[in-house]
Amino acid sequence: MNFEEVKREVVKFSEDREWGQFHTPENLAKSISIEAAELLECFQWNADYDKQAAKEEVADIMNYCILMADKMGINIEDAIMEKLKKNAEKYPVEKSYGTSKKYTEQ
Amino acid sequence: MNFEEVKREVVKFSEDREWGQFHTPENLAKSISIEAAELLECFQWNADYDKQAAKEEVADIMNYCILMADKMGINIEDAIMEKLKKNAEKYPVEKSYGTSKKYTEQ
Amino acid sequence: MNFEEVKREVVKFSEDREWGQFHTPENLAKSISIEAAELLECFQWNADYDKQAAKEEVADIMNYCILMADKMGINIEDAIMEKLKKNAEKYPVEKSYGTSKKYTEQ
Amino acid sequence: MNFEEVKREVVKFSEDREWGQFHTPENLAKSISIEAAELLECFQWNADYDKQAAKEEVADIMNYCILMADKMGINIEDAIMEKLKKNAEKYPVEKSYGTSKKYTEQ
Repeated sequence: MNFEEVKREVVKFSEDREWGQFHTPENLAKSISIEAAELLECFQWNADYDKQAAKEEVADIMNYCILMADKMGINIEDAIMEKLKKNAEKYPVEKSYGTSKKYTEQ
Repeated sequence: MNFEEVKREVVKFSEDREWGQFHTPENLAKSISIEAAELLECFQWNADYDKQAAKEEVADIMNYCILMADKMGINIEDAIMEKLKKNAEKYPVEKSYGTSKKYTEQ
Repeated sequence: MNFEEVKREVVKFSEDREWGQFHTPENLAKSISIEAAELLECFQWNADYDKQAAKEEVADIMNYCILMADKMGINIEDAIMEKLKKNAEKYPVEKSYGTSKKYTEQ
Repeated sequence: MNFEEVKREVVKFSEDREWGQFHTPENLAKSISIEAAELLECFQWNADYDKQAAKEEVADIMNYCILMADKMGINIEDAIMEKLKKNAEKYPVEKSYGTSKKYTEQ
């Protein structure tokens, strides 16, 4: 299934349950943080992790991001490409090659 | 640009900078939580928000989710659809219609 | 300065600025998550960290926890001791010695 | 019980179980974020919240902050007072009265 279809399924799942009323951008932002922490919990005490559990948490985060984009009326693919372009300016290859330093510290 | 192309661009951006060495699943999980909190900061004191700022934070979260899926060797679209199926069992329409209650409380 | 005095100073700092109106329990919960992620950022790419930066983030988290307890009308010391007692039941020494497993997995 | 005693009890609880080996500053930073998100979950869909549940989550966050300060060799009370002093410079009363704006936006 391609991403366009996946996005439609995610929105439909929520619509079928009349959950749109709870999905304000603010509540979705909270929900993304909550799910992100559940993913982090897979790595709480060491780098080993349960792959199935982590996969489900990544899915939960993506699910809420799709609903967020839908509520905000933005296109996810465009948002990512715009940000990538901005990051390319902050992190030109010649300055960023092989370093994890923040652009403010380079 | 479709999502397949976006995913390739995101991975290429990291490869061009030799950032794969920093992108362990554990570090990416931390990064997703950090970006999720930056999105949450758009809503820290009220529900009004700067749409451009929020859009960029959603893009950052998605960016790290794409890198995470790449490192874990999973397909994002499949992961979302699998989780949606599982959620449909936990949240059947007739029990979940119009309520935000967790399935454990229904 | 002892903790009782510190708590009073933290609350006074907020009162002097009329910030109580923003400090609903919900907003403080968001704020704690936001500051916790800033602490996490000190460890984003590796375990080395800037001690001064980390110290300030821990202080920010504590600061919001004190305001939260104040708003909720609870005593922090009592809350910690109550939870420690509950944890002692979930994690008896003989079952928990030297293992980071969650009580649900033991 | 005063905060000095509470701090000793929290550290002792961990020592009794030989958990110090898991409590690196990095792992504690992750743990604080995880617990902060559990507190946030009390407010996921609205501002109403279960007071007992929220109290326990605040305790969990404080618990890990105490262990963090212990591992880092810092004094929590001093750290908070130092940060409060720094905040007083960033947020002088006359500029900050009644506004939730970040000092960078004032």
